[in-house]
Amino acid sequence: MSSSSEVEYPRRILDYMEGFLVSKTLFAACELGVFDLLSQSKQSMRAAEIAHRLKTNVDGMERLLAACVGLELLHVEMIEGEAVYYNAELSRIYLTRSSPKSLFQSIQYNSQTIYLCWHNLTDAVREGRNQYERAFGVSSKDFFEALYRSEEEVLKFMELMNSVWNICGRDVVTAFDLSTFEKICDLGGCSGAIAKQCVLTYPEAMVTIFDLPKVVEMSKKHFVSAEENRISFQEGDFFRDPLPVADLYVLARILHDWTDEKCVELLIKVNKACQPGGGVLLIEALLNEDKSGPLTVQLYSLNMLVQTEGRERSPTEYLRLLEAAGFKDIQVQRTGKLYDTILGRK
Amino acid sequence: MSSSSEVEYPRRILDYMEGFLVSKTLFAACELGVFDLLSQSKQSMRAAEIAHRLKTNVDGMERLLAACVGLELLHVEMIEGEAVYYNAELSRIYLTRSSPKSLFQSIQYNSQTIYLCWHNLTDAVREGRNQYERAFGVSSKDFFEALYRSEEEVLKFMELMNSVWNICGRDVVTAFDLSTFEKICDLGGCSGAIAKQCVLTYPEAMVTIFDLPKVVEMSKKHFVSAEENRISFQEGDFFRDPLPVADLYVLARILHDWTDEKCVELLIKVNKACQPGGGVLLIEALLNEDKSGPLTVQLYSLNMLVQTEGRERSPTEYLRLLEAAGFKDIQVQRTGKLYDTILGRK
Repeated sequence: MSSSSEVEYPRRILDYMEGFLVSKTLFAACELGVFDLLSQSKQSMRAAEIAHRLKTNVDGMERLLAACVGLELLHVEMIEGEAVYYNAELSRIYLTRSSPKSLFQSIQYNSQTIYLCWHNLTDAVREGRNQYERAFGVSSKDFFEALYRSEEEVLKFMELMNSVWNICGRDVVTAFDLSTFEKICDLGGCSGAIAKQCVLTYPEAMVTIFDLPKVVEMSKKHFVSAEENRISFQEGDFFRDPLPVADLYVLARILHDWTDEKCVELLIKVNKACQPGGGVLLIEALLNEDKSGPLTVQLYSLNMLVQTEGRERSPTEYLRLLEAAGFKDIQVQRTGKLYDTILGRK
Repeated sequence: MSSSSEVEYPRRILDYMEGFLVSKTLFAACELGVFDLLSQSKQSMRAAEIAHRLKTNVDGMERLLAACVGLELLHVEMIEGEAVYYNAELSRIYLTRSSPKSLFQSIQYNSQTIYLCWHNLTDAVREGRNQYERAFGVSSKDFFEALYRSEEEVLKFMELMNSVWNICGRDVVTAFDLSTFEKICDLGGCSGAIAKQCVLTYPEAMVTIFDLPKVVEMSKKHFVSAEENRISFQEGDFFRDPLPVADLYVLARILHDWTDEKCVELLIKVNKACQPGGGVLLIEALLNEDKSGPLTVQLYSLNMLVQTEGRERSPTEYLRLLEAAGFKDIQVQRTGKLYDTILGRK
């Protein structure tokens, strides 16, 4: 219900209208390297100094820094009558490029790609399909072909995927005890972030990353060191090619890309390849059963509309897909973060 | 300071990253007419019915409605096992097109124009100038020429200007008692929203709207009825042409478009034209003296960078401009809403 003061003055609507200003302020400060510079610097810095080092206009930088203070991403102090800026702890941990928990690459991808796709949200709702063609002039018939339209785009997307596991990766592999599964196959395993978490957490685990040849190539080149001898790769298209034999198949943010039909098709294939007693682990953002929330997942489901052919689903919706493919003993574990987990057994 | 739980999990940064998703969800629902349809309908409606009436895809509409429920812009009820949607009171008042307090036109302009300008915020900070050229391919040397590049754009901008006074107009004309000023000139008076508030509030007031010929033409055509016999128009460019004689000059969101130099130039002209004992009323979003907030105004100042050659200012900064032009007895009145007021005397 709206409160009476809200009816007098729609502050909440104004906040929603400002949402994109807030996003882009954060994105621009990251992109220009403000948090990196302040993290490398031994002391707090004046706006003119930051502007000089980052090769920007001074007035523009002053305004950007002021807005970052308003967002509590930076702190400001007056020293000898001059404002000097330093990173909030949150920014140092999550917004600097080299931090192990960095969200920098997610931010870049949101700023440069997703922001433009969402400019066409109205069209996406009207047409019920993704907006790659309008946003980037690339055909969207096979949306992964559109997404992976150049080597640069493959790498950018992989960095996006990699980045979110910096903050949620450990939670999703520990939500269930997976120690009984020795041979793990990460379908669409991308940059190997989940594979690395698995071998870190489970000393007996051996993980095969299954992904498209161009993704495997980039994964070896940029993400997974050859010394990780418990992680191996297999190239293929999981809709067309045979899957590796394994005890556990991990599908992390895979099913949300696809229609129910394609999900069941893929899960049947997984079920057939799976060892007796084995299982499948889905890692997805889960809607409440009545779709009443969480807001983040409702927004992500619109994002799937704008970018893919899939959707976010409730636990029961995933349960139906798994059951249709022959899985049983299905359990759900929430993590309290962005991504939750569902385990099914063959 | 960051709280320790925040350092564990950066929910606030994720919220900032989602800001543009929230904005665009609101914008798309407005643009498609969801709130209008639900306001006209006598009863709550199913998603399929809404999609059919608004000629959209059903699945896309379902996701949009779910996200609007998450944002508390819509409410949902289950009737005979089916979800039906109805407007939150806030949405009925502020998001429907025909409501007297409608923000619909602000939302349209934010969605279609400002959103795209802000895609280039990083460049704006780097270069210290507006981004019309990058965003729309129009020269930005005279930014009002860029802004008013077609009759359609003039009207869209005027509707934006008009819209915000639906929620703040009365507050800014009543913040000071203006009843002693009979002849009022609204410089850059645009759609006449402030002029209408003045004649409504002050029974003796006569208001002249001074604006560019193409704006005056549109204002007469779309906004100000010929029967408003206490409102008249004068065409001109306030930097080049003589100003009408008046007791009070209103400059509502004018100075924030311009550099300090141009502001002083304009204020000197106003001071010369002003009757003895007369005054000038500035209506602007005010920064705190130490620039520490409010966040909205810090963001608006970045918006001025992206779109104009001006900036948002603190009360003291406006005081200096007014004093440099010969005004005195300067007083500030805050309204608690987006726009505050400053009154100076000749």
